[in-house]
Amino acid sequence: MTDTDYQAVLEEVAADIAPRIGQGRPAGYIPALADVDPRRFGMALADVDGQVYGVGDWGEPFSTQSITKVFTLALALAHGGHNLWQHVGREPSGNPFNSLVQLEYENGIPRNPFINAGALVVTDRLLGMTGDARGALLEFLRAESGNEAVDFAPHVAESEAAHGERNAALAYFMASCGNMLNPVPAVLDHYFWQCSIEMSCGDLALAGRFLARHGLRADGSRLLSSSEAKQVNAIMLTCGTYDAAGNFAYRVGLPGKSGIGGGIIAVLPGYATLCVWSPGLDEHGNSVAGVAALDRFTTLTGLSVF
Amino acid sequence: MTDTDYQAVLEEVAADIAPRIGQGRPAGYIPALADVDPRRFGMALADVDGQVYGVGDWGEPFSTQSITKVFTLALALAHGGHNLWQHVGREPSGNPFNSLVQLEYENGIPRNPFINAGALVVTDRLLGMTGDARGALLEFLRAESGNEAVDFAPHVAESEAAHGERNAALAYFMASCGNMLNPVPAVLDHYFWQCSIEMSCGDLALAGRFLARHGLRADGSRLLSSSEAKQVNAIMLTCGTYDAAGNFAYRVGLPGKSGIGGGIIAVLPGYATLCVWSPGLDEHGNSVAGVAALDRFTTLTGLSVF
Amino acid sequence: MTDTDYQAVLEEVAADIAPRIGQGRPAGYIPALADVDPRRFGMALADVDGQVYGVGDWGEPFSTQSITKVFTLALALAHGGHNLWQHVGREPSGNPFNSLVQLEYENGIPRNPFINAGALVVTDRLLGMTGDARGALLEFLRAESGNEAVDFAPHVAESEAAHGERNAALAYFMASCGNMLNPVPAVLDHYFWQCSIEMSCGDLALAGRFLARHGLRADGSRLLSSSEAKQVNAIMLTCGTYDAAGNFAYRVGLPGKSGIGGGIIAVLPGYATLCVWSPGLDEHGNSVAGVAALDRFTTLTGLSVF
Amino acid sequence: MTDTDYQAVLEEVAADIAPRIGQGRPAGYIPALADVDPRRFGMALADVDGQVYGVGDWGEPFSTQSITKVFTLALALAHGGHNLWQHVGREPSGNPFNSLVQLEYENGIPRNPFINAGALVVTDRLLGMTGDARGALLEFLRAESGNEAVDFAPHVAESEAAHGERNAALAYFMASCGNMLNPVPAVLDHYFWQCSIEMSCGDLALAGRFLARHGLRADGSRLLSSSEAKQVNAIMLTCGTYDAAGNFAYRVGLPGKSGIGGGIIAVLPGYATLCVWSPGLDEHGNSVAGVAALDRFTTLTGLSVF
Repeated sequence: MTDTDYQAVLEEVAADIAPRIGQGRPAGYIPALADVDPRRFGMALADVDGQVYGVGDWGEPFSTQSITKVFTLALALAHGGHNLWQHVGREPSGNPFNSLVQLEYENGIPRNPFINAGALVVTDRLLGMTGDARGALLEFLRAESGNEAVDFAPHVAESEAAHGERNAALAYFMASCGNMLNPVPAVLDHYFWQCSIEMSCGDLALAGRFLARHGLRADGSRLLSSSEAKQVNAIMLTCGTYDAAGNFAYRVGLPGKSGIGGGIIAVLPGYATLCVWSPGLDEHGNSVAGVAALDRFTTLTGLSVF
Repeated sequence: MTDTDYQAVLEEVAADIAPRIGQGRPAGYIPALADVDPRRFGMALADVDGQVYGVGDWGEPFSTQSITKVFTLALALAHGGHNLWQHVGREPSGNPFNSLVQLEYENGIPRNPFINAGALVVTDRLLGMTGDARGALLEFLRAESGNEAVDFAPHVAESEAAHGERNAALAYFMASCGNMLNPVPAVLDHYFWQCSIEMSCGDLALAGRFLARHGLRADGSRLLSSSEAKQVNAIMLTCGTYDAAGNFAYRVGLPGKSGIGGGIIAVLPGYATLCVWSPGLDEHGNSVAGVAALDRFTTLTGLSVF
Repeated sequence: MTDTDYQAVLEEVAADIAPRIGQGRPAGYIPALADVDPRRFGMALADVDGQVYGVGDWGEPFSTQSITKVFTLALALAHGGHNLWQHVGREPSGNPFNSLVQLEYENGIPRNPFINAGALVVTDRLLGMTGDARGALLEFLRAESGNEAVDFAPHVAESEAAHGERNAALAYFMASCGNMLNPVPAVLDHYFWQCSIEMSCGDLALAGRFLARHGLRADGSRLLSSSEAKQVNAIMLTCGTYDAAGNFAYRVGLPGKSGIGGGIIAVLPGYATLCVWSPGLDEHGNSVAGVAALDRFTTLTGLSVF
Repeated sequence: MTDTDYQAVLEEVAADIAPRIGQGRPAGYIPALADVDPRRFGMALADVDGQVYGVGDWGEPFSTQSITKVFTLALALAHGGHNLWQHVGREPSGNPFNSLVQLEYENGIPRNPFINAGALVVTDRLLGMTGDARGALLEFLRAESGNEAVDFAPHVAESEAAHGERNAALAYFMASCGNMLNPVPAVLDHYFWQCSIEMSCGDLALAGRFLARHGLRADGSRLLSSSEAKQVNAIMLTCGTYDAAGNFAYRVGLPGKSGIGGGIIAVLPGYATLCVWSPGLDEHGNSVAGVAALDRFTTLTGLSVF
């Protein structure tokens, strides 16, 4: 598929799924997210050579939220955190992203790094290894996207903290099981700031290119081994879209990770990384228009991992 | 990769994982399975053109058990059972394959077609559409494998029925929720006979080629649309190996479906279908040497969906 | 309290709770129960000397349903079934009466003899000890009530069997855990016939007098030791009214056992046994007017176990 | 039963259950409790007239822990907290005392006031009504026991706080459901200090006399209505001994409340309040020798509520 094709496909996708834009509801649990215009839509594709294609609001920064969980996982693995897998699993949870039920049955070991409890464990380890988990994440995202303007949104981080009782419950529960190395308030603080980072579809597609490049960073240095990059993609496919991961694999057929800001990144291993954004969410917390756009993209191109 | 390469890779895989053969324990819940020699190992690959490569006991028939769930699903879809998805989900269960807990919380709608409850729903529908679910399955497997000797093992079917209380509990529970169209005893009977079918690795690799051929049968006719074949592969990846599907995706990176007879089929979409068999099972019910062999295969070849 | 007082109190209770009669809904899961007139109400008290007092429809037979679980438990204990407590627990379940969830987590050992699964275990044991569980129950109820007309209602038993998938699921699940001694169909058959027995409030109050008489039967012979009678009362208090037992203890303060036919028996140890009947059920399956009447009775008399 | 009888019975009980003293294990989760000598045993009875009888270490202060939950509940009701029942239930939980599972399924409304989550709700309400929950409790216990030396154990409270992650998880979870009126750290602080109060068996038997006196305090003033006192007793019987309440009712047949310091109070409505203490706990967190002593007491005297 040539460069021109990618741009044409994105435009066709945007036209086809236009009726879905505005469907669903933006996340309402913190005011900073609830105020976003639900009619926004953007989509970008960064190929393995760094060429970026985009449509709609693809240059507009939005709240990345849980999409950052992919990057903190990759950073933790890159910093040598391989015993991470003793503290967090790699299985789909079959439960909502913020559930405590399974965590209690399984003694404080979260099912995977993409549910909230698992991401708190990853942040805890990254904090232990780097001394500054949120700083390490921000630096990485700026470097890979080539955009020094990528930054935290302090009012979002503060709003998350002010409404963070559920995440506090998860973290204190894991602490009670001995599965938190750092003090709970510090881990929560880094976690809330990580979630607050704002980036555009273009930024995120570029930043996630290492997943399509078998572990190579933008500058050609190696972040992850080829095998590790494959493993992160596998976890995205089985666990990346909350308790709708099976349906996402069925419809889209790509490794993907969504955030309740309405963004989703997806990977075509060996080819490209995509990012789509539209704030209206379905009942599982995934962007309605975003999933539809990725579904349409794979149908039009015949590209999927299956 | 050339033909010679496939054969060489299979031989290298077999040599590399030899220490794992005999590890784990054969399924013990029915005598017919418990008596199998745990040191058996075979592996076969059928490419999209129908060429077959094999190593070890790849021509030896074994009890297919849950591997048949892939074929009954495909047949139900091929017979037009698309409203099937109103009666069974497409999400990983996060629970053991024979659990009733989730089924009760979710009103008798099983999470996916590859846990026992979901397979019972598929058999129930296939029975309704064909009048003979087990017969339709046997005919299909004989045709695709080109082996008219493929058959039921009556003593296994009878042994399953004699120890079938758990499956009876699942079926009666779904019946109590209105999610069984046919009488429970009939559905159980067809289900037990389906599970009893014996095939070799070579037979199964050939029979599963439609998954690598985007839905085309051995004779070139279409069983599933390209999109449906992709969907079955997606469900195999997210749900095909019981509650260890995440780890299988992480290690192997291929759509796969295991059975407690010790067999696993796996798909390289566009290239080939594999089948491996060794009776020793891990704690999740997957063949220890079989998973190791597929893991080694994807590592050696660099072929995976990610 | 003199005899005259009991009759006066029953009449005052009936007058006070008249507005509650007809509230709630009769059980609808089998036609035989759904057709009952929801405006029926009766209440009877049998003192330890065998004197009976009654008000309203207290002489009208109704479907005893789960009330029989008290009597089958007592008979199983009386026949020497003390190892019964290795097969069924004595704890409140905290779940609906027909739930499979807890049963799976606890390996097929039901929480107590008054949820359906536990009653199936008791029937299984009584069947093993007597060869005729339903016959032993009927004989006992006729003897204690002094009413030879007490009998099964065959159309109710058949209707239960025809809609018995949920109970079949419970029984087959326990069988799969090794917690059924007799064939499942036989146990289900005895269970459905037991539930179908029809008795009046007066019959049931008389039949339950052994619970107020520390284990002595109507003819003065001993059914249970004093300690066993206390134990059955304790289980009634903690487990007798489904997942509303705590609230029943809070409001009424007496050991009680309800049935979805709308009846409830309750015990004043050392004094009397009561039975009340009105078909309208609350969301937990307990008679609305029945609970109100017992609540009013204990408030008016100051009699409760607390 | 005369005064002399009570003393004689206590002595007989102590002699009979002597072999059980030292069985089980003291609570080990905070050092302050783990260091207690497991061979301590004391038992006291306070009759409705204020006469106290005792045996063994009945005058020795120990850590009351969860026994205080009875008193905070009574104080919350006495302060007019009747809408309390909209925020906490009255049903047995069927789960361990510190479980989050049920709390999540039931939207942050704890099952009853005697599991940790429920007691946190009661403390939260009492804090709101009095401004000083722990102070109100201490004042009440001193007044009822007539012992001004009753006091907090600061090192125990601090140790509870230092190991309080599980309770923090419960409280933050309820806060996330809107079921905490005061800031979580304040509620936890009052809760930990309440649990730290040290009293003897004699103190506690006296302090709990209002439960045997239908709501009347030591000075004859009314704390609770007769109906409320009955209700508290009912909740003790169905929920007072963690997930072993059914078995406690079965064996002992009295309303009771245990603490992991090894103490249990029990009520003979209209007659007396008992308290027993021995640090060795069974797997449910109840004192082994304590339950045995109460069991023996009711067997010897024939006194129980059933």
